Amino acid sequence: MTTDLSSENIASNAPAADKSGRIIISVDAMGGDRGPAAVIAGIAQSAAKNPDIGFIVHGDEPTLTKLLKKKRHLADVVEVRHAEDVVTMDAKPSHVMRNGKKTSMWSTVDAVRNGEAAVAVSCGNTGALMALSMIRLRKLPGVNRPAIACLWPSTNPGGFNVMLDVGADIRADEHDLLQYALMGASYARNGLGLSRPRIGLLNVGTEEHKGRAELKAANELITDAADQANIDYVGFVEGGDIPSDRADVIVTDGYTGNIALKTGEGTASFISGALRSAFKHSPLSRLGALFALTSLKRLQKRIDPRRVNGGVFLGLNGTVVKSHGSADATGISAAIKLAFTLGESGFSEKLAARVASVTPSRQDETANVKASDDAAQSTNTNNG
Amino acid sequence: MTTDLSSENIASNAPAADKSGRIIISVDAMGGDRGPAAVIAGIAQSAAKNPDIGFIVHGDEPTLTKLLKKKRHLADVVEVRHAEDVVTMDAKPSHVMRNGKKTSMWSTVDAVRNGEAAVAVSCGNTGALMALSMIRLRKLPGVNRPAIACLWPSTNPGGFNVMLDVGADIRADEHDLLQYALMGASYARNGLGLSRPRIGLLNVGTEEHKGRAELKAANELITDAADQANIDYVGFVEGGDIPSDRADVIVTDGYTGNIALKTGEGTASFISGALRSAFKHSPLSRLGALFALTSLKRLQKRIDPRRVNGGVFLGLNGTVVKSHGSADATGISAAIKLAFTLGESGFSEKLAARVASVTPSRQDETANVKASDDAAQSTNTNNG
Repeated sequence: MTTDLSSENIASNAPAADKSGRIIISVDAMGGDRGPAAVIAGIAQSAAKNPDIGFIVHGDEPTLTKLLKKKRHLADVVEVRHAEDVVTMDAKPSHVMRNGKKTSMWSTVDAVRNGEAAVAVSCGNTGALMALSMIRLRKLPGVNRPAIACLWPSTNPGGFNVMLDVGADIRADEHDLLQYALMGASYARNGLGLSRPRIGLLNVGTEEHKGRAELKAANELITDAADQANIDYVGFVEGGDIPSDRADVIVTDGYTGNIALKTGEGTASFISGALRSAFKHSPLSRLGALFALTSLKRLQKRIDPRRVNGGVFLGLNGTVVKSHGSADATGISAAIKLAFTLGESGFSEKLAARVASVTPSRQDETANVKASDDAAQSTNTNNG
Repeated sequence: MTTDLSSENIASNAPAADKSGRIIISVDAMGGDRGPAAVIAGIAQSAAKNPDIGFIVHGDEPTLTKLLKKKRHLADVVEVRHAEDVVTMDAKPSHVMRNGKKTSMWSTVDAVRNGEAAVAVSCGNTGALMALSMIRLRKLPGVNRPAIACLWPSTNPGGFNVMLDVGADIRADEHDLLQYALMGASYARNGLGLSRPRIGLLNVGTEEHKGRAELKAANELITDAADQANIDYVGFVEGGDIPSDRADVIVTDGYTGNIALKTGEGTASFISGALRSAFKHSPLSRLGALFALTSLKRLQKRIDPRRVNGGVFLGLNGTVVKSHGSADATGISAAIKLAFTLGESGFSEKLAARVASVTPSRQDETANVKASDDAAQSTNTNNG
């Protein structure tokens, strides 16, 4: 990365709450496939459900002001920040890093950098968002490759597993995979409310002798770190275990995770299509669909990708939630809810402490960190 | 591999038909999760549907003879070969290679090696089957890593895509990926009846600058070879394209392919479970399911993994079909049908010729090979 890394101090972004005690979320209104109207509609949904969220919204001021005028209940909780440029979906990350200072995405990330907001949300270009997040927020000490974590519908009691990395970086060595295990555990504690997450390492078989060299090495590193990190390491898991209840956090490199994520989404959408056409096949099957409508809607809700909208960038000084580019109001509202949960729990600080606890030079801080993370967990389980 | 590679000549396994003109399939009756009864039941299903298949069945003779006595229509088409040992599901491939001479799996593969059977089918341990196939059949000249190809339900007119490698080897360089593209194309021609298969290379994005170095190199190699090999190379595809109609053949390394395959299977089974519980939720939804029964059965049939049972080992002197370990009679019958289709088309010889056509030292044979493969295709489309 040949970019100007400013030497300013990055503000400590302790839970950014305004005077009214709201958790502030910084939202990029531009750059998604459906434009700012969908983003403002998503904010309106979230604000109607949860009065404890405040918003800083970044984008073209005239457009945003016009959209906000129609939603009077947002007047007190939304602040607009004008940004004249937009990061397009096909923009190259390197170009955005050099020339993106006036974009809404840059401004969105900077509100977290400056401590004005607890978490940033954008449905823009993933590569550009990660690149901007890396130069503006910087990597946590001890983290070599940040990761993107996603939620995956599963048969676990909570209904979801965490998987990372799903595409921040196309490769990961054993040390990166250990960091992912720790960061994923911290996310499962603070985002899903699990006190002792079970971690699985994705491989082509569950036997210890299987897989690539870095996986065998990571298997040993995570085994050794499990006790100290208060995680339950279940060893290797297979692709079929991703939607299962064998683990809460699935650890893999970004290439494999991205392929698995998209394969899962593609399979789900293939089956939905087949289900739709099966029910359209005859008058009798149409009638059946009518009777089964509630059941089908319940199923749809359970596997609806919009409900699990939000990839979380882990390993930076600050938390960024990447919403799906094609997210509608419901999807954006889900991403905001996730951002709020993480912001309220003080996730950024806990993650930083967690990572620091296994960075070799800081072994002595471990005991404190463990205590603070566990305490955090017990408060967090009470949050929506 | 530190094993005794016998110097005997490997028989040319031209379509092995017996005196009655039947295509002979060599079937391992042991080693599957459901035992020889399921295998014999699968053979009975296939024999009832298709009188043009003959079987050599390998395993414990008393057991097999007893099972066969109940199926009188099999008397003329099944020959039993006694084998006293069985390869267990947890056997290490290296152990089987050294000590497996008396196993039913070894005997099953050797019937292809000796030219007695056109194709071998086993539902035993995959690693051991691949190891035995490699030492008994040997790799084709020019092939560094053999691959396992599977069929994947898709929105293509034929209902399936081919994906390879799904687990023969955990890595592949650009030359291996080129071989996979050619072998997968040959399989799509002879197994699916496609005259000019579209090939896609699995990656984390469709842009040329994305992905690992070996993928970028393979992208160039396949682009250069496409015309000569009479394939339509569509470039990079993503995980979401595996069940789509963007390509007929998806090329990837065995680590990624295995994870994608199991993720897809896991997602499908997760959704089936959710669908079942949705329909059990209330009396009304149970009634709905009753009305929709035919539609649901049609859907189930479309995504039933048993119908696509059979991973094909490619890159050896002879064809081996690996059936799912847990396959029941329907699954085994599907694997036998696939074996028959490939055996009848003379797939082994065509694949060998195809691979030879791009092995640098044999460039001069290209024109002949292309003509023969195309001719093969035109006869093959008439086969079931």
